[in-house]
Amino acid sequence: MTTDEKIMQGCIALAKKGAGYVSPNPLVGCIIINNGEIIGEGYHEKYGEPHAEANAIEDAKKKGHSLVGAKLYVNLEPCSHFGKRPPCADLIVSEKIGEVFIGMQDPYKEVNGKGIEKLEQAGIKVTSGILEKECRELNKFFITYVTEERPYVTLKIAQSIDGAIALNNGKSKYITNKTSREFVHRMRSEYDAVLIGKNTAKMDNPDLNVREVEGRNPLRIVIDKNLKLPKDLKIFCDNDKDKTYVITNDKEGENLIRIKNKISSKKILKKLYEMKINSIIVEGGAHLFSQFLEDELFDDVYFFIAPKIIGTGLSPFNNFKIKSLDKVKNLKFEYQKNLDNDILLYYKNLCSQE
Amino acid sequence: MTTDEKIMQGCIALAKKGAGYVSPNPLVGCIIINNGEIIGEGYHEKYGEPHAEANAIEDAKKKGHSLVGAKLYVNLEPCSHFGKRPPCADLIVSEKIGEVFIGMQDPYKEVNGKGIEKLEQAGIKVTSGILEKECRELNKFFITYVTEERPYVTLKIAQSIDGAIALNNGKSKYITNKTSREFVHRMRSEYDAVLIGKNTAKMDNPDLNVREVEGRNPLRIVIDKNLKLPKDLKIFCDNDKDKTYVITNDKEGENLIRIKNKISSKKILKKLYEMKINSIIVEGGAHLFSQFLEDELFDDVYFFIAPKIIGTGLSPFNNFKIKSLDKVKNLKFEYQKNLDNDILLYYKNLCSQE
Repeated sequence: MTTDEKIMQGCIALAKKGAGYVSPNPLVGCIIINNGEIIGEGYHEKYGEPHAEANAIEDAKKKGHSLVGAKLYVNLEPCSHFGKRPPCADLIVSEKIGEVFIGMQDPYKEVNGKGIEKLEQAGIKVTSGILEKECRELNKFFITYVTEERPYVTLKIAQSIDGAIALNNGKSKYITNKTSREFVHRMRSEYDAVLIGKNTAKMDNPDLNVREVEGRNPLRIVIDKNLKLPKDLKIFCDNDKDKTYVITNDKEGENLIRIKNKISSKKILKKLYEMKINSIIVEGGAHLFSQFLEDELFDDVYFFIAPKIIGTGLSPFNNFKIKSLDKVKNLKFEYQKNLDNDILLYYKNLCSQE
Repeated sequence: MTTDEKIMQGCIALAKKGAGYVSPNPLVGCIIINNGEIIGEGYHEKYGEPHAEANAIEDAKKKGHSLVGAKLYVNLEPCSHFGKRPPCADLIVSEKIGEVFIGMQDPYKEVNGKGIEKLEQAGIKVTSGILEKECRELNKFFITYVTEERPYVTLKIAQSIDGAIALNNGKSKYITNKTSREFVHRMRSEYDAVLIGKNTAKMDNPDLNVREVEGRNPLRIVIDKNLKLPKDLKIFCDNDKDKTYVITNDKEGENLIRIKNKISSKKILKKLYEMKINSIIVEGGAHLFSQFLEDELFDDVYFFIAPKIIGTGLSPFNNFKIKSLDKVKNLKFEYQKNLDNDILLYYKNLCSQE
């Protein structure tokens, strides 16, 4: 690994601190080096607040360092447009930074190369594509959000080895262990929202919040076409009830997301995109998993596999039906992880952009 | 790892060369050391032929070495009884070996400590329990065979991630990839027999032999209560057809295994034990898997998981039914292995002796 790559790793680590707080903005970290020393660092901490570059420059100045001729590292191309903040590219130029190292170009159409152009026109040397793969993985939510104009969709499935997510009578609490649930809670703390179907809401009466680890709760979205779900479900009553949204055919109102006629995965994602939700975890049940699979509207799948055999039970993709083996949905295996003898198998959609 | 343990590892490696050829005998390897040098080594090569100790002693003598005062390492207690061969313990004593290092005591009731006793009575120092866990794993077939008086039972399941071993129309060729199939063929070359149910025989018309790797074919056993299976199935017609046995209610005859009334897993294993079969792989289908699971008559399970989603399909334990989650069958996770992006998950039965 080169020195530039090591510093970019540092930017990625900084950027991750913003996970859960900057959406729909990207995760960005920035490190400024002068004469081989780190003189400033910063990250985008919260949506609406200063960008990583501005924070790093501020940090260097506060410590009394000169920025003239310094090297600035950032995992995403500095912005060139006026959003909530003045463009970072302009700031870098005005501070007389000497050289800029970038992880990946910004896919957002308002930037997309214009930031780099601005820097180069001001005579700043720019190197792009440092740890590009890692930088793209870091910002997979953002990339999907701006290029596909929909949230990044993760399917999360907790099952027995033989592929049951519940008994035939619907019982599923808890198939997987505490370590798996901690992993899921950490995920929830970084995604904008979790989505479940009506049956899952009714059968499991889940909290869908972050309890096992530190972190902020996601929005909770439940599909309930005719608003028939009992009002005493936890998601409607607990302290976070104002973060619960219901997708319905029926009427408009506070915390209601109205979709007319058939509630398809495509229509759901369009609504969530309009709400500026950049990432969701679909947490069940089988009907919803099957729908997102069938429509190819998912980016990855986390299977948490408990060391148990359930036998006859509910299959995660129970409503997905094929007649010959060439119609199977192939996934791309990415990695596996032992979670205290539950096994996490992580796959990406072969058709996903990332 | 101590020197003694390293040498014992060598014994285990030698012993494995006999896999597939010594059943129902154990796998045994032997190394003889004098003045820090290996002077002889050998393993039990084939059922009915000399034991490992005799081969190693023969090897040392052939090379002109004296055995007096030498150290002998062997993964299993030397035998003390007359079987097909004179007792190895007697041979070791008569050759004036000085010290003996043993991996594990022989659980077979005719030996079970008597070999060690014989050596010690002759004034030979004996150390037992070197790499005992590894030695027990090596001879798990043999241990189960002599202590439980049944073959060691492995369930082998090839499935999609969502737990389908076949489509609803029964199609299952091939869910897993070539690397998984090679792994299974290597297993077959080391087990005495494979066992399948009637439907699997009819639907898949499998070869159940060793093609993808070098090795000898196992016996093939198929359950066909009323002898209704078509006679043109491969297992009845190919070059190995004399190694195919049919379990039936119906009549007696060549290559027929008659079981009266209900054909239970317990009765099957009793018959196979009488045939001196020390290990079987149950290769399907769901009915048979469920039966061995229900009866707790299995030792381990290999799940080969292809990166595919099948949706509605046949679950491996389709006939196993529970009503509450405290009735699940818990397994003990042992290891996972990436087989060219099929994932092998290996579990042991919590109730197994090993």
